[in-house]
Amino acid sequence: MKRAEVIDYESRASRDDHQSLRLWLRFLACANLIERRVRRNLRVEFGTTLPRFDFLAQLQRHPMGLKMGEISERMMVTGGNVTGIADELVASGLVVREASRDDRRAYTVKLTAAGRRSFGDMARAHERWIVEFFAGLNSREKASMLEALAKLKRHAATSNGDGAA
Amino acid sequence: MKRAEVIDYESRASRDDHQSLRLWLRFLACANLIERRVRRNLRVEFGTTLPRFDFLAQLQRHPMGLKMGEISERMMVTGGNVTGIADELVASGLVVREASRDDRRAYTVKLTAAGRRSFGDMARAHERWIVEFFAGLNSREKASMLEALAKLKRHAATSNGDGAA
Repeated sequence: MKRAEVIDYESRASRDDHQSLRLWLRFLACANLIERRVRRNLRVEFGTTLPRFDFLAQLQRHPMGLKMGEISERMMVTGGNVTGIADELVASGLVVREASRDDRRAYTVKLTAAGRRSFGDMARAHERWIVEFFAGLNSREKASMLEALAKLKRHAATSNGDGAA
Repeated sequence: MKRAEVIDYESRASRDDHQSLRLWLRFLACANLIERRVRRNLRVEFGTTLPRFDFLAQLQRHPMGLKMGEISERMMVTGGNVTGIADELVASGLVVREASRDDRRAYTVKLTAAGRRSFGDMARAHERWIVEFFAGLNSREKASMLEALAKLKRHAATSNGDGAA
């Protein structure tokens, strides 16, 4: 690449690329900020962690139970050791392990009645916090962000980032 | 709370609260999707990790160097053990440790010339990937998302989520 082309590439970059990069950094900053608050509130109000909450949320959506691998795949937050979380939740009586019907080597994890009750309390509080965090946006702004995120997700899901290389 | 009030609360919840919760879940899904792609590309193309990239990015923005605590605070991704990352980056010659001027017990970490070069290559590739991931949105949509995220961040920064309890 000649020097003039480099400069040309960089001046274009400073317009378009820079907008996307700024958007991604602001996006991450918002996600981190809200995630930190949610972690803190779960700890202070319920003595629990975000990975545990996330684990319970996946089971709540699947009353028939899930295998450990299915829970891992569905988790919204990273950094959780699903086996360790399952052990803790079994010990506190919120979930039970059952032999899997279709695979004798695997087992399924399900919420207990106490688990459903406990998760219900946390989920209501969590929803209240999220509503409060997003209260800086009005309903129209939220709707257009929902739409933009759907487009972003559709596009990013089919791209590995190398298309523009 | 009487039964009628519960139903009333829940029907309001299913409109407003539900929109915010859906927005947050979609937000997290997009952040996770893009972060996974970035991690994969850094590994495949540069044999490095997102926390290492993030660590170098903080040093690039602060040519005078940063203390370890300052790097931790500024990291955009979680799960990185900054001391371990610093050790690896020192071993590969990308950063150096220097005694801190204002605090003899602390030290400052700085990019070496090789570190600046290596980070420059990664940062250009990273910017290309991000541009490609966000290419599903046009410039106007990106501008309005940037603006909405700024409002979201301002509001969430001053709220601990309990205001709406």
